[in-house]
Amino acid sequence: MDEAAFLDSYDPTAFERPSVAVDLILTSVVDGAPAVLLHRRDAPPYRDSWALPGGFVGIGESIDDAARRVLAAKARMDGAYLEQLYTFGAVERDPRMRIVSVAYFALLPAERFAAAPGLTLARVAADGDGVATAWVDGAAVPLAFDHGAMLDLAIRRLRGKLDWSPVAFALLPERFTLRALQDVHEAILGRALNKPAFRRRLIESGRIAATGERETGASFRPAELYRYTGGR
Amino acid sequence: MDEAAFLDSYDPTAFERPSVAVDLILTSVVDGAPAVLLHRRDAPPYRDSWALPGGFVGIGESIDDAARRVLAAKARMDGAYLEQLYTFGAVERDPRMRIVSVAYFALLPAERFAAAPGLTLARVAADGDGVATAWVDGAAVPLAFDHGAMLDLAIRRLRGKLDWSPVAFALLPERFTLRALQDVHEAILGRALNKPAFRRRLIESGRIAATGERETGASFRPAELYRYTGGR
Repeated sequence: MDEAAFLDSYDPTAFERPSVAVDLILTSVVDGAPAVLLHRRDAPPYRDSWALPGGFVGIGESIDDAARRVLAAKARMDGAYLEQLYTFGAVERDPRMRIVSVAYFALLPAERFAAAPGLTLARVAADGDGVATAWVDGAAVPLAFDHGAMLDLAIRRLRGKLDWSPVAFALLPERFTLRALQDVHEAILGRALNKPAFRRRLIESGRIAATGERETGASFRPAELYRYTGGR
Repeated sequence: MDEAAFLDSYDPTAFERPSVAVDLILTSVVDGAPAVLLHRRDAPPYRDSWALPGGFVGIGESIDDAARRVLAAKARMDGAYLEQLYTFGAVERDPRMRIVSVAYFALLPAERFAAAPGLTLARVAADGDGVATAWVDGAAVPLAFDHGAMLDLAIRRLRGKLDWSPVAFALLPERFTLRALQDVHEAILGRALNKPAFRRRLIESGRIAATGERETGASFRPAELYRYTGGR
């Protein structure tokens, strides 16, 4: 059977097919910096490199369900904000076999960002173009496969969406101070923002509303708590 | 072998796997309205419904190359602007077999938008939310599979990117009048724009530059021709 006939066939045994996987960029802002969960590979290929958690898509589950399964199994992050990022399909991206991978990012507040066994919290630093480097224990770590490109794209997408989507709020608890909101924006953007201008812009946008409550635990002038209104 | 073992296996014969396809939203602006190429299905499922052109991804080609192959085979649109849109992976999206489909949109100026045999130019009308309906010969046509959702998403993505990406210019010839540029914006947005404000904004953005040439064939006051500078 020639290639054209292969590709027109609906017999799943008639031609070699790529496999489908999902990879997850599990992201939070921890101590003022973006962070991502990685595991260290203990076998070839890319032995000793760090990799994003992922898994194959089962025949009976949607790609979104596969992403949620990996999220539950590898990161214990129930209810994370999950969004499809991009599909990576270069022929040589995995030397073992042909795998097309759908990358998702999952966002959670730091308080709920608990790594499952085997996963390590890596800090992420990105330059002005959004080229991201992951750091473990102060050392830059190389990522396996095309996972570096996935991480770069996740950071660029987060930057691009900060002002018109709920992503910043997915990185915060339900009630947050304006200082915490600005910290999240600065961590994702990788630069300092003017405090009065930031606060004015966010409040005037209608995207946040004061709750009338104040933070607890602060010893001096507890700050007012805000919530996301759901607006854009 | 249980499912977890299936999904951890790198033996491609060890478990049932979804197939991977690409579907293309081949788009232009023709006579002031968005248009897309469709073919009418002559066999079940969805017999007599209209569908986007697509095909399986071969084991030895990247997903981008598969999209380019379908583009060349089905639309004869060399050099079209091609962009991955989103991956559709619901379990029941195709009743024949499990297929994960990576949707791409391809953009070309109307002058180069030549359909291959078997494809029909459908007009697209979208409401304020970007919900798109395809029209052939003045009648709304139902789309097969989840292709209606793909078309909706393509229109919404185009709208969202008009002002900060080259997509509008991909729908125009290399040299264009400001009127033609405004026509493309209005067709994608589905609403009229204020002419002086539109022209001022585009010229001040630095994204277009006057060529010093004027259109030919216009009998009265031929308009100046502009080009895209490559800027955002």
